[in-house]
Amino acid sequence: MTQNIYDRPDFFSSYSQLGRSVKGLEGAAEWPALRRLLPDMKQLRVVDLGCGFGWFCRWAREQGAARVLGIDVSEKMLARARAATADDAIAFERADLERLDLGKARFDLAYSSLVLHYIKDAARLMQTIHGALVDGGRFVFSAEHPIYMAPSNPSWSIDAAGRRTWPLDRYLVEGPRITDWLAKGVVKHHRTMATILNLLIRSAFAIEHVEEFCPTEEQIAAQPELAAERERPMFLLVAARR
Amino acid sequence: MTQNIYDRPDFFSSYSQLGRSVKGLEGAAEWPALRRLLPDMKQLRVVDLGCGFGWFCRWAREQGAARVLGIDVSEKMLARARAATADDAIAFERADLERLDLGKARFDLAYSSLVLHYIKDAARLMQTIHGALVDGGRFVFSAEHPIYMAPSNPSWSIDAAGRRTWPLDRYLVEGPRITDWLAKGVVKHHRTMATILNLLIRSAFAIEHVEEFCPTEEQIAAQPELAAERERPMFLLVAARR
Repeated sequence: MTQNIYDRPDFFSSYSQLGRSVKGLEGAAEWPALRRLLPDMKQLRVVDLGCGFGWFCRWAREQGAARVLGIDVSEKMLARARAATADDAIAFERADLERLDLGKARFDLAYSSLVLHYIKDAARLMQTIHGALVDGGRFVFSAEHPIYMAPSNPSWSIDAAGRRTWPLDRYLVEGPRITDWLAKGVVKHHRTMATILNLLIRSAFAIEHVEEFCPTEEQIAAQPELAAERERPMFLLVAARR
Repeated sequence: MTQNIYDRPDFFSSYSQLGRSVKGLEGAAEWPALRRLLPDMKQLRVVDLGCGFGWFCRWAREQGAARVLGIDVSEKMLARARAATADDAIAFERADLERLDLGKARFDLAYSSLVLHYIKDAARLMQTIHGALVDGGRFVFSAEHPIYMAPSNPSWSIDAAGRRTWPLDRYLVEGPRITDWLAKGVVKHHRTMATILNLLIRSAFAIEHVEEFCPTEEQIAAQPELAAERERPMFLLVAARR
């Protein structure tokens, strides 16, 4: 089973205090870019893989989605998602994304925000998603960018000229990366950009758009610390079509 | 017009001494990976954009291509290509790839090795290539990887733990990069992975395979200095279909 870091009290407590946990979608710098990759939500049957507190599920319904299924492995997150949701067209289910069975041709849109890097068997998950979409259905997701995840020491360096640089190494060495993000010993699975895209292609998805998140001038003016995000991408965003 | 660095005597002299110039395709570490992306060459009509000394043009004919057109901006390279080629089915033409007119539906395969990063208007070139291919035709190319090209100082650093790292910065700041490779003041045009892939998609290519060159164990055993190439990718290889 996937490491269920979200149900560890120390992680859950810290995660609950992040901007994106408190403010929802608008608290995530990459959300405006990810939102632009989404189709018109009206009447869509939507599945959110790694739904967390359910912010996206509720947003999808506000935009006119017919029904939304949110899936997560974390009991604590699902409990909070259910408590925050009063809508019979939104359902939440607990499942391990490594072993998920989604059925066939049930959804028009599969969405997943910052979950793929926790998945060891990404090929299986992509095939599951492909099977669960109708022809022409969309898979839109974000993931931690491989450049961000790869390094032995994923934190800024200052070079001899005083420039902030990202000390990239091990980019082409795929496999687990263990970091102390919010809690000790968080396991992520590093795959290169090429591997992620080829997994989609081999699952018979057509890639429609690839984005490496870069904050806008307006975002940097409002949050000057985002300027550093231009040095190396933190998030990968992809839109694909079955 | 594209900076024609290859006709500068200092650059041409140094370039002529590289392994890939002396030994041809087999002198390029990424060639086995790029070759695997190519279709069966038998009876194909092929265009090689940035053909240099014509190594690929001659190889394509050896593999059974019906005819091959090699295009380059460098008079010196074309002169040597012509001198090394005795085959009426191979033609060489001088053209600036920024202003190329390739006609419509004339080719089954467009190939380009390590040229895209010299092109300022990549969108125009991709549209030109798309138009020049028949339906189902392939575009297979290599380019300097954006991770390799982006940094202010594109050379290895050694971190506090003694690890070799690649000091990435300015990855999301697209535009010219001026380096002193073989000669002073070589101008390249940095685009992110996402931009390169989206340019293909918007030109109506379907992306079939993406590869970030990593040397094989056998290559590293034969050339131990290639081990460093696992830290960050030097070459991007792409296969797309019209």
